[in-house]
Amino acid sequence: MTRTIDLNSDLGEGYGAWTMGNDAAMLDVVSSANIACGFHAGDPLTLHTTMAQAAMRGIAIGAHVSYPDRVGFGRRPMDVTPAELTADVIYQIGALQGIARAAGTRVAYVKPHGALYNTIAQDARQADAVIAAIRAIDPSLALMGLAGAPILGRAADAGLTAVAEAFADRAYAPDGQLVPRRDAGAVLHDAETVAARMLRLAADGEIEASDGSVLRLRADSICVHGDSPGAVAMARRVRDALSGNGIAIAPFAETG
Amino acid sequence: MTRTIDLNSDLGEGYGAWTMGNDAAMLDVVSSANIACGFHAGDPLTLHTTMAQAAMRGIAIGAHVSYPDRVGFGRRPMDVTPAELTADVIYQIGALQGIARAAGTRVAYVKPHGALYNTIAQDARQADAVIAAIRAIDPSLALMGLAGAPILGRAADAGLTAVAEAFADRAYAPDGQLVPRRDAGAVLHDAETVAARMLRLAADGEIEASDGSVLRLRADSICVHGDSPGAVAMARRVRDALSGNGIAIAPFAETG
Amino acid sequence: MTRTIDLNSDLGEGYGAWTMGNDAAMLDVVSSANIACGFHAGDPLTLHTTMAQAAMRGIAIGAHVSYPDRVGFGRRPMDVTPAELTADVIYQIGALQGIARAAGTRVAYVKPHGALYNTIAQDARQADAVIAAIRAIDPSLALMGLAGAPILGRAADAGLTAVAEAFADRAYAPDGQLVPRRDAGAVLHDAETVAARMLRLAADGEIEASDGSVLRLRADSICVHGDSPGAVAMARRVRDALSGNGIAIAPFAETG
Amino acid sequence: MTRTIDLNSDLGEGYGAWTMGNDAAMLDVVSSANIACGFHAGDPLTLHTTMAQAAMRGIAIGAHVSYPDRVGFGRRPMDVTPAELTADVIYQIGALQGIARAAGTRVAYVKPHGALYNTIAQDARQADAVIAAIRAIDPSLALMGLAGAPILGRAADAGLTAVAEAFADRAYAPDGQLVPRRDAGAVLHDAETVAARMLRLAADGEIEASDGSVLRLRADSICVHGDSPGAVAMARRVRDALSGNGIAIAPFAETG
Repeated sequence: MTRTIDLNSDLGEGYGAWTMGNDAAMLDVVSSANIACGFHAGDPLTLHTTMAQAAMRGIAIGAHVSYPDRVGFGRRPMDVTPAELTADVIYQIGALQGIARAAGTRVAYVKPHGALYNTIAQDARQADAVIAAIRAIDPSLALMGLAGAPILGRAADAGLTAVAEAFADRAYAPDGQLVPRRDAGAVLHDAETVAARMLRLAADGEIEASDGSVLRLRADSICVHGDSPGAVAMARRVRDALSGNGIAIAPFAETG
Repeated sequence: MTRTIDLNSDLGEGYGAWTMGNDAAMLDVVSSANIACGFHAGDPLTLHTTMAQAAMRGIAIGAHVSYPDRVGFGRRPMDVTPAELTADVIYQIGALQGIARAAGTRVAYVKPHGALYNTIAQDARQADAVIAAIRAIDPSLALMGLAGAPILGRAADAGLTAVAEAFADRAYAPDGQLVPRRDAGAVLHDAETVAARMLRLAADGEIEASDGSVLRLRADSICVHGDSPGAVAMARRVRDALSGNGIAIAPFAETG
Repeated sequence: MTRTIDLNSDLGEGYGAWTMGNDAAMLDVVSSANIACGFHAGDPLTLHTTMAQAAMRGIAIGAHVSYPDRVGFGRRPMDVTPAELTADVIYQIGALQGIARAAGTRVAYVKPHGALYNTIAQDARQADAVIAAIRAIDPSLALMGLAGAPILGRAADAGLTAVAEAFADRAYAPDGQLVPRRDAGAVLHDAETVAARMLRLAADGEIEASDGSVLRLRADSICVHGDSPGAVAMARRVRDALSGNGIAIAPFAETG
Repeated sequence: MTRTIDLNSDLGEGYGAWTMGNDAAMLDVVSSANIACGFHAGDPLTLHTTMAQAAMRGIAIGAHVSYPDRVGFGRRPMDVTPAELTADVIYQIGALQGIARAAGTRVAYVKPHGALYNTIAQDARQADAVIAAIRAIDPSLALMGLAGAPILGRAADAGLTAVAEAFADRAYAPDGQLVPRRDAGAVLHDAETVAARMLRLAADGEIEASDGSVLRLRADSICVHGDSPGAVAMARRVRDALSGNGIAIAPFAETG
């Protein structure tokens, strides 16, 4: 039996005349694309172009929904009400589904972005608002969240498919949480180290924590980045390490 | 055989803390609601609330798509490229379809708003971009446009259902075009006069032009406004004049 | 010796086609106008029109600066960085100063709006970012803040003129803080009661707290609202109660 | 006597997480910086950072005002009213003046951006609205416009200092207008050719038109770009050709 794992990355994050990351390169690396929905990034024409390219490659599409904060790139916590958040998420998923239909593909999952991602990993009130949005618009959409975080259980309890995600270039605390970005060593920069860690995670379900202890972690998908030449190279290295060691890269979700 | 005609109005045009018009009153008058899509007006929560109320009443839902110009309320001509316009329209329709699914209804037609409406009535390049958007996302969506304008023929030629619309409170030039708003007498203010004109239009397919001549005009829908107490009263008067004279008010499109 | 107090209100909070409150009525009630700066409300043309009307009446102008959250009307806490906040506040003050110069008046003070107002009342990090902005662009601008809150001391320590503000229609807790809006009785609705409270505050420096105890509170300015017909009437009643009992209504700051 | 000419470029055109061009490199090339004002590009923090760097180098600051169209980068013609345009320009200049004060410098001129630049070069109605804005906020601000276009005469007639600008990398039609971008040969790509053309322009007031004829053209400033590595190299080549042949690079306006 072949082992498989999904590789995902954030794409379609340009806005008008501005570009972000190297979408063309990453489309050759990943099996799932988290595509911006216009609230933190992504104008409609950029989204359509990105979606069409992803569709041609059989890549699964995720709606990368965000707080409404373009100038802050969705990275700033906002104390929105549950009703606002549910409506905002429905609107964004709907817009991306429309673009997907026009591009001949479909949205398979939802991955909240940035500050929203971090908040709902723990915060039940905002988590439930996102879950309610998905259930209202299309309960067959999976929800991607942080491996080990409460959000995954909440989503599953609500009847959604919960997809657990690990971060290739992030250090993990002994309790399984990500080391906060502000702490030293939070982000890993050596491609070989990162690739070896992800191979171990995918093959054995283990990852070494920041104190040297070994964590058990189940991940359906690994998040890689493409926002710098070094990041693209690291993403390729992760892909090569996995596929060169018998781990197939494939979407967790059906495409098209 | 009962004659029927559709009454439509612009709804969901609030934005955050700001309100616009009297949606509650107009939902009791019209059979079709042109609901803003966020580009000229309408935040997601307002759209969801409005959509849910319209769905409960069996009102047909139209996507009121616009140029991206919130501060100008979509009323200012913008020289967007066809590719930008097509993507913008797909995005807006998709967003509204998402809100509609969550509210238990569906989008039945597309009515461009404001400056976009006026531009595509005549301009083939932008008209074709809007038509392409509808065909790409869902060719079963009807396109509502100005009765007598070239856009309707273009839409029909492209395989779309074209819905011809007359304006209750606007004067018509002898050539069938609307008298421009900047001209004296362009907007009619007497509810009785307006109601009588719309009854004649619905019953006989005739409307008196600004020079006293009589135009033949086929209209599937009549647009009424709700942005002032007087406007709501006029809309009610139009509805009463029609239904009191054997013209049933009903959506041109199937609902829900 | 005549006692004087300032009355302030939020003005210029329309946006494009949308209106908010009754600016025309409130310009006849207040001595200071907190004018929106475009981040939570206020397009440039609305700001210019409002400013010109305020200038004609000798009303003092305040820059009503906000988080960048138009759809949320600046009412949602946002975790912005101090550098972002300082730059955002400088930008908004500068824009309003430009409009003021064009309208023949000048900005006399800064009053943060909504969630920013509440946050900086207590939070030193964001408070210092706002104070830094004022010092950088023009240290002669006063900062208006909640009477009794730490922000006023911080502003004074930084060399700014700190203006203490009371809220006409809000209940006060025994510790001098506002009763939170979500609590019963937080907002007072009876105009006579409110007017009597404000007269006592202005004349004697006392206000009755929600438990019946009496607080000492020094206020340079009283905030009144104009967002409903009842609110305008209450604001007029407050003005009449003050001026009819020997308390002159006058800006705390020089105008023009 | 030393000949001098100004070199200007568009700077501060990032937005939040997005960058645009190579500001650091261009600050070592130009003598004047057209700094975005937030309507087509430029968030407050980016503007402040750019302004501070320009101030340290003694570079003159221009307000690069635009239509309100961020997603279109201000490149799409918009049919705004004169009153809207005047207020929008005042707001933007004011905001930039505020940032400049905080950064220890001042705004010396106004250069409209993109579609607004092109429109007012010829269109009297929008040109007069921009001129009215400058006169209202600060008539000592110069207006930079297309060398040879009617806007310069209109500005001078209104009492403003009019600054004539030539474009380093653009072909000129025999009538002195720019060859439209959509035409073949509109944009020049060879740095040596461009540098030689600008040297001739600065030294002799002549430029070869697209048909080989020679135009007389008076320019106070030359616009160079920094939006690609090739563009930066070309800008440097223009600077070197001028300064290496006795033409000093210096702001047309006083700085600081």
